[in-house]
Amino acid sequence: MKKALAFDIGGTKIYSTVVDESGSVIDEISKFNTPKSIDGIKKVLTEQIRKYENDVDIIAIATAGAVNNSNTAVIGSTGNLVQGYSSIDFQKLSSKRVFLENDANAAAWAEYKIGASKGTSVSVMLTLGTGVGGGIIINDRLLKGKSGAAGEMHFKMYSDKRRKCTCGSWDCFEIYASGTALKLDAEEVLGDSNVTTYDVIQGVNNNDSTMISILNRWQNDIINGIKGLVNIFDPDCVVLSGSMAQFTDTKHIEEEVNSDIVTTPTSIKIATAGNYAGMIGVSLLGLSEVSDNG
Amino acid sequence: MKKALAFDIGGTKIYSTVVDESGSVIDEISKFNTPKSIDGIKKVLTEQIRKYENDVDIIAIATAGAVNNSNTAVIGSTGNLVQGYSSIDFQKLSSKRVFLENDANAAAWAEYKIGASKGTSVSVMLTLGTGVGGGIIINDRLLKGKSGAAGEMHFKMYSDKRRKCTCGSWDCFEIYASGTALKLDAEEVLGDSNVTTYDVIQGVNNNDSTMISILNRWQNDIINGIKGLVNIFDPDCVVLSGSMAQFTDTKHIEEEVNSDIVTTPTSIKIATAGNYAGMIGVSLLGLSEVSDNG
Repeated sequence: MKKALAFDIGGTKIYSTVVDESGSVIDEISKFNTPKSIDGIKKVLTEQIRKYENDVDIIAIATAGAVNNSNTAVIGSTGNLVQGYSSIDFQKLSSKRVFLENDANAAAWAEYKIGASKGTSVSVMLTLGTGVGGGIIINDRLLKGKSGAAGEMHFKMYSDKRRKCTCGSWDCFEIYASGTALKLDAEEVLGDSNVTTYDVIQGVNNNDSTMISILNRWQNDIINGIKGLVNIFDPDCVVLSGSMAQFTDTKHIEEEVNSDIVTTPTSIKIATAGNYAGMIGVSLLGLSEVSDNG
Repeated sequence: MKKALAFDIGGTKIYSTVVDESGSVIDEISKFNTPKSIDGIKKVLTEQIRKYENDVDIIAIATAGAVNNSNTAVIGSTGNLVQGYSSIDFQKLSSKRVFLENDANAAAWAEYKIGASKGTSVSVMLTLGTGVGGGIIINDRLLKGKSGAAGEMHFKMYSDKRRKCTCGSWDCFEIYASGTALKLDAEEVLGDSNVTTYDVIQGVNNNDSTMISILNRWQNDIINGIKGLVNIFDPDCVVLSGSMAQFTDTKHIEEEVNSDIVTTPTSIKIATAGNYAGMIGVSLLGLSEVSDNG
C-alpha cells in the first residue's frame, strides 16, 4: 500500500506523520513549534524527510495559505506564517514528489473520503478555529478556482463596516464565525475587552443566560452565513470542523438553515476524520495523483 | 449541423426560435405572452413543437425556476409562474428529447461557449434584471448542486433584517442588486414610494447628484456581493448580464473588487451573447448531450 510522509504546517505548530492510501495514520505524530524563519521551517521538514523519504511514495504537506493548482507552491501571503513563506521551493526538499494543499481544503477532502461527507456529490466544509477555513468539493473535485485560492470564507455579513476582518476587509464571515468572533461578540455585549472565548464557554456550561445569548448570537451569524452558501452550492451537507465546532448545535443550525433557503434541504454535520484530517486529506490527494500516473 | 427548437419561458413572455450547434439563431424569434394557466403554457409550446419538431434534433427550454440534474423537470416553485408549473411533464410534449435548464444557468453557458467568459475555467455570471439570477461554471461544467438548484444569489448583505427579499428571507444579495433594489434604494433616500428605476436612470443621465449617489449605493452593494463570490470561487471573470447591467461601471467594479479580496485579481465583464443567450445556452447544453450520446 502506498504511503505519504505527511505534514501539517500551521502558524504555531508543525505536525508530521505517515499516512497510507486508505487514509490511516500509521506512524507516531511528531510535533514541532513552527520556526519563525524560512530556514527553520525548512530544517524541520528536511529532518523528517531524511528520516522517512525512502519508505514513502510522496511528501504531502497541508499548509496554511492558498496552494496553486499544480499543488507545488503556496501563493500569496498568509498572515500566520513568516514573511517569505510562499517563496519556499518545497520540491527541492525531496527527490519524491512534494504535494501541497491548503489545510482546510485537505481536511475537507479527508471528510469526503473517510469522514462526515463521504458519498456526497457536493459538500461545503467550514473549519471554525481561531479563524475560519473553507473547503468545497463538487463532483469528486476540490473547488480550487483559477489560481488555487478558492474556498475563502470572506463574504460580507454586513455592508456597513462594523467589524474589521483579519484579512483587512470589513465584516467577512470569518470575523463573525471564528473563535475570535465569539470573543468579539462577548466584548461587545459585556463592554469588557478582557473577556475570553473560554469565559463564554464556561459561562454557557454554568447556564449563565448572558453567556448563552452571546453564544447564540455567534451561532446565528454562522447560520446566516451557511444559508448563503447553501443557496449558492445546493450541497448534500455542510461539515463543521475545527476547535469551535463542538460548541455549535448542528440540529438547531440545520433546522434554521432549511427553513430559510431557496434550494433543497441540506444536512449539517460535525467532522469525523479527527485532528489529523489535514494530513490525511493531503496524503490521499497526493497519493491518488501518484496512483493515477501509474 | 444539429439544431434545437429553443424556448425561453419567463414570467411575462415566452420566446421561441431555432438554434444550431454553433450557437447561431437560425430562425425568426416568436414571442408570446406567458399564459396564466398550465394548459395555456402547454398549448404555446405544443404549437411551436408541432411546427418545428421534424426539422430539429431536440427541444431546448430555458425556464425560470431551478431545473433538476437530469434536465427533465422544474423543481420547486417559482413565484413568477403559474402555480403547478413544476408539475408539467415537458417530455410528453414531444417525441424528441426535451432538455430543460434554468434560464440564468443557460445564459451563463452561452457566455461561456460564445460570449464574455469564453475560454475561462471558472466564471460567475450575475443576471441583473427585475431580480438577480446566477450561473456558475467550473471546469467546463455548470454548478448544479445536489438537486440542480445551485447558483441562487440569496446570500445575506446584512444580518439584521433590513429589507425583505422576494424569496421570503431577509437581506439577500438579490434584493440589493436587482432593478427592484435600485427602486428601493431610491425610495429610502427620497422618502417617496412612487419613484421608479427609470427616474433614477434619467436623473443620472441629467447629472442629478442625488440620483447619482443612489445609483452608486446600488452599485456598491453589487461590489460587496461580488467580493464575496470572488473569494469563494476565485473566478477568471464575473459576467454581468440582464437589463440592469448596462447601468454598472465594470471598470470601477473591477478596481474596487480587486482591491479588497484575498484571492487573485479577477475581471468584470458585460455579457456579449445577446438577448437570446438563454435559448442559445440551453440549446448548446442539450445538443452537446445528443452529440455525446452518439
